[in-house]
Amino acid sequence: MTKYTESVEKLLERLIRLPGIGRRSAERMVNYLLSAEKSEVRDLIEAIAKVKDNVRLCAVCNNLSEQELCAVCHDSGRRQDLVCVVQQPKDVTAVEKTGYYKGLYHVLMGAIAPLEGRGPADLKIDGLLSRIKGNGIKEIIIATDADTDGETTALYLTKLIRPLGVRVSRIGLGLPVGSQLEYADSATLLKALESRRDI
Amino acid sequence: MTKYTESVEKLLERLIRLPGIGRRSAERMVNYLLSAEKSEVRDLIEAIAKVKDNVRLCAVCNNLSEQELCAVCHDSGRRQDLVCVVQQPKDVTAVEKTGYYKGLYHVLMGAIAPLEGRGPADLKIDGLLSRIKGNGIKEIIIATDADTDGETTALYLTKLIRPLGVRVSRIGLGLPVGSQLEYADSATLLKALESRRDI
Repeated sequence: MTKYTESVEKLLERLIRLPGIGRRSAERMVNYLLSAEKSEVRDLIEAIAKVKDNVRLCAVCNNLSEQELCAVCHDSGRRQDLVCVVQQPKDVTAVEKTGYYKGLYHVLMGAIAPLEGRGPADLKIDGLLSRIKGNGIKEIIIATDADTDGETTALYLTKLIRPLGVRVSRIGLGLPVGSQLEYADSATLLKALESRRDI
Repeated sequence: MTKYTESVEKLLERLIRLPGIGRRSAERMVNYLLSAEKSEVRDLIEAIAKVKDNVRLCAVCNNLSEQELCAVCHDSGRRQDLVCVVQQPKDVTAVEKTGYYKGLYHVLMGAIAPLEGRGPADLKIDGLLSRIKGNGIKEIIIATDADTDGETTALYLTKLIRPLGVRVSRIGLGLPVGSQLEYADSATLLKALESRRDI
């Protein structure tokens, strides 16, 4: 295959590693960057660097944060006795979009996925258990994905948490089976939250 | 809409400006960058900066280059009397992929697009005319796109170049190789009929 100049080929190679970006999209992006103002490109570079430098996980719930505590954990107006357990930081954003939920979160940073070699030890479960043991939490809503990994994780957590004497619920109705939480529309997610049932 | 942290929102805003990137793709990219190794992200940043710093347009033909002259113009083994006129640097790569063409190029950096307010003055046409006047060029192949803007540009260039006494040709328009007649649109079929050749 005939090639572009060396720098362009190197950038294409890097861009193709991004999720959802093929060679054609990468070429369009490079084209855009080449014709864009220098300041525009500098701003993009700075934005990438800043995210990597400033964004970390909340010390309590693992949500994305630029301080020790995330905006949710920092908000004393939220219900402190209710914790919604999700797989990824982006799932927090999805639940927040419904505007319905006013409790706290706990981000597991993944799900149990035996086929991919991810077990409970790879998830942030210890932190969740400590939170339950010492903070007057009354209910845990398990909002992991509705696919196999998410369900496995929900089951595993239920068995672990129920003996601790808190109510454990699972979001249910509304989420199409086999789908992933991040793709649910707000209305569906709202239904799922409203129709949560004890498990 | 509920938001991510400030740095993340800023990066999302920047990424969405890239061609073909919507909010969902941008979120996936940010997620990837957050979980990627620091070195991986640094390499991406460097690759973007290098392209912007090193890549310029060839002083003769406007093809992408990292030196004064691009690789094609620098290659004395190519036919110096044949120039293929294209709209974008990526079109050079497309023609080179055929392995058939051994002449030079001239990149217009766009096409005449009255509806978008782009006229002949916005294209690199002066440089093309100077090349034709002084360099023993025998034929100009106009390989602009087969859409309205590309056709308009081809027509405009033909009128300009023919008086200079060089042969002007247009790449063949017709049925794509491997396609079926029943699926061809009428405009393509008309072109195919018009450009029929004795066999």
